[in-house]
Amino acid sequence: MDQKNVDELLAKANKPGKDAMIMHPHYKGKIQVTSKCAVRSLDDFAIWYTPGVAKPCLDIRDNPEKVYEHTNKGNMVAVVSDGTRVLGLGDIGPEAGLPVMEGKGLLFKYLGGVDAFPICLDTKDPDKIIETVLLMQPSFGGINLEDISQPKCFYVLDELRKRARIPVWHDDQQGTAAVTFAGLMNAAKFVGKDFNNLKLAMVGTGAAGASCLRVMIAAGLNPANVRVLDLIEGKPTILTSGMDMEKLFPHRGEMLLKTNADGVKGGMDELFRGMDAVIGYAGPGLIKPEHIKSMAEKPIVFACANPVPEIWPWEAKEAGAVVVATGRSDFPNQVNNSLGFPAIFRGTLDVRATTITDGMCIAAAKELAKVAEEKGLHEDYITPSMDEWEVFPREAAAVGMKAIEDGVAGITDVTYDDIMKNAEKIIKSSRESVQLLMKEGHIPPAPDGV
Amino acid sequence: MDQKNVDELLAKANKPGKDAMIMHPHYKGKIQVTSKCAVRSLDDFAIWYTPGVAKPCLDIRDNPEKVYEHTNKGNMVAVVSDGTRVLGLGDIGPEAGLPVMEGKGLLFKYLGGVDAFPICLDTKDPDKIIETVLLMQPSFGGINLEDISQPKCFYVLDELRKRARIPVWHDDQQGTAAVTFAGLMNAAKFVGKDFNNLKLAMVGTGAAGASCLRVMIAAGLNPANVRVLDLIEGKPTILTSGMDMEKLFPHRGEMLLKTNADGVKGGMDELFRGMDAVIGYAGPGLIKPEHIKSMAEKPIVFACANPVPEIWPWEAKEAGAVVVATGRSDFPNQVNNSLGFPAIFRGTLDVRATTITDGMCIAAAKELAKVAEEKGLHEDYITPSMDEWEVFPREAAAVGMKAIEDGVAGITDVTYDDIMKNAEKIIKSSRESVQLLMKEGHIPPAPDGV
Repeated sequence: MDQKNVDELLAKANKPGKDAMIMHPHYKGKIQVTSKCAVRSLDDFAIWYTPGVAKPCLDIRDNPEKVYEHTNKGNMVAVVSDGTRVLGLGDIGPEAGLPVMEGKGLLFKYLGGVDAFPICLDTKDPDKIIETVLLMQPSFGGINLEDISQPKCFYVLDELRKRARIPVWHDDQQGTAAVTFAGLMNAAKFVGKDFNNLKLAMVGTGAAGASCLRVMIAAGLNPANVRVLDLIEGKPTILTSGMDMEKLFPHRGEMLLKTNADGVKGGMDELFRGMDAVIGYAGPGLIKPEHIKSMAEKPIVFACANPVPEIWPWEAKEAGAVVVATGRSDFPNQVNNSLGFPAIFRGTLDVRATTITDGMCIAAAKELAKVAEEKGLHEDYITPSMDEWEVFPREAAAVGMKAIEDGVAGITDVTYDDIMKNAEKIIKSSRESVQLLMKEGHIPPAPDGV
Repeated sequence: MDQKNVDELLAKANKPGKDAMIMHPHYKGKIQVTSKCAVRSLDDFAIWYTPGVAKPCLDIRDNPEKVYEHTNKGNMVAVVSDGTRVLGLGDIGPEAGLPVMEGKGLLFKYLGGVDAFPICLDTKDPDKIIETVLLMQPSFGGINLEDISQPKCFYVLDELRKRARIPVWHDDQQGTAAVTFAGLMNAAKFVGKDFNNLKLAMVGTGAAGASCLRVMIAAGLNPANVRVLDLIEGKPTILTSGMDMEKLFPHRGEMLLKTNADGVKGGMDELFRGMDAVIGYAGPGLIKPEHIKSMAEKPIVFACANPVPEIWPWEAKEAGAVVVATGRSDFPNQVNNSLGFPAIFRGTLDVRATTITDGMCIAAAKELAKVAEEKGLHEDYITPSMDEWEVFPREAAAVGMKAIEDGVAGITDVTYDDIMKNAEKIIKSSRESVQLLMKEGHIPPAPDGV
């Protein structure tokens, strides 16, 4: 690709940021709180507030589970962050993270019909994050942790999954894993390789990379064929069993010791040699064309660093990659968390699951992969896009049924079709509501030229 | 009033509770989170979420005050409760309090255009409540404490007002005080008495009673002419200067010592003798007709216990009361917090005040009183009702201007008219949005017969 094309692509890549600086102050926020119930006249406040509200309150006092009948707890998720690892921006603080968390709330509702509220916390102490989340539980039906730095994010998630009464997940772990797994499963299928025996190179073992690996192993991938590279004393190094793994990579050591059965040593050059696929959740520009050239036939390249991938798609293709995926919306095969969390929470909430198991993530990933497969895989289409909105109700239904199967659902007398129809209705109404508020001017028009 | 009428009134009083038990499960919640910004197509998510959102995030990191430009923080209030004193129901717990806090969110938006989100906390420890609120500050522009038991509510409010960067108030204190003061000011005017020299009896000195007194003294009422009664060792007793007041009534002692300059001793009988007005925030049926008969000419009776007042209005009238107010919507002269908090927060947020001073509460009360006075006071009309919605923008403007005057506003280059016009627009849009969602079926119709 020549410089002119590269310049054009970069200009295109910069446009959303420019528009965002106009659109954000124009709207002063991306989410609002509004009524879920009818207000026929102000007389209804005697039902919704004092004196009428006392009866539902007492009903909940006497039957705690009735909180799901009398309030929106069952559809309400907290998006919790301390702002220590926001997007690829690092530790920018909780206020600076708020635009992302509000955005997450917007996506949760628009794509999954889930009410989600941003809680940005003014602490970096993992134990304070845990305690605050536990204290807030009465208001929420689930917790989505977001953009918390590693390694504390592993500890925070593990502790909360043990101690919370409501499902807690960390989107940068399980959400990313579900969508990446779906993409890689279909990519392997497209190039005619068996997923479970895929020879996989991983660049980076942070929250996203480590969780991808954990979920894919749980789904059947043989870890013996996986090589993982990370920095050891500042130097890119393939992880081998002789290392003090848990000390180097807390919360991941046991899993990492199962990888690299051949004991291959070295750096980036050795990592790629003969591998079927590579997943990068590491940093811009780390993968070179010669790395891809050293891979097995029909290489699969997932270069997921955001916003600048480990290798640009055109470079990877020129070096022989057959399927290339990135985290970006301006290239084919976007590995996009938005395909996961809204629907996974939809299904989780609708069966009132007490946790989100890896099995539920895998069920979501398989359904996601199946939607694309049914439409016909090709090198530029390994996962559906957000536009194919039937994917969300289908994923929700798969997740709900898996929760029932795994014995973590509070509601068990529903079918796949029940959950799907309910999800379709809620998501449709969420979208139409926004369009209606826009049409009637309650959400004002965008400024000219954006 | 004969038994038939009493039975009818009681049946009417019970209807909201019956309806609430049908309506709450029908809607499963009173508030939802939806988009505040345009979503023209899913491509807009590149602006609202990654990659575009990174720019506003970095702008806030570099200029922290920009969080008010790029997010909805500036219009977002947390309604925080531990569920220890919900309505008149006592300590029913945080889940059981959620229907009230959601209701508060509904009123905040519908009456004041303020986005308000319920945070029910799973702790009764005042220090944990304080810490949690402090940690949540990045997401919110203000904090409304609600239904927290006394005396800890005084401590929680005082500490948070000292330590928080955003305005914190306790509606059961300042909100109740503002609306009660407005009503009493107009009642005094109607009977031709000077408010500042009103001889006032107070039954109960809990959060509501004590705050009413504090705010009214700040507004000019002479405490020497006030007699306060509360339980001392279980016995209703007029408070006198010989008592160890701060120990008996923490956080209120100093103020209470300024009351009862005549040193009148005794119980309920002595409390009322010769007084111009009585305010009860105590409990059902405590005031007897003979108490009112012993008052000065043209007695004013505020019997504000909820849901059953200290004396029923018809009994008070029969005993000679000229103006009777209660907390109930089914009698004239409802002393209703909903006339206060939505507009007071509207004004506070619109000038980005760092606190809500008693002066701002007093300004709101005076504007509230003025609206009724302009329309013509009579014995059954001493405050406007919620239906007279012009009251909210006027209050907001009065509060905003007072915040500027008191030097607590972050935005000072606005006029009374600016704030009022802005408030009118926001509140109108809030109401119309709900009606629109109802009309198009996104908020479903109420069940038949409710």
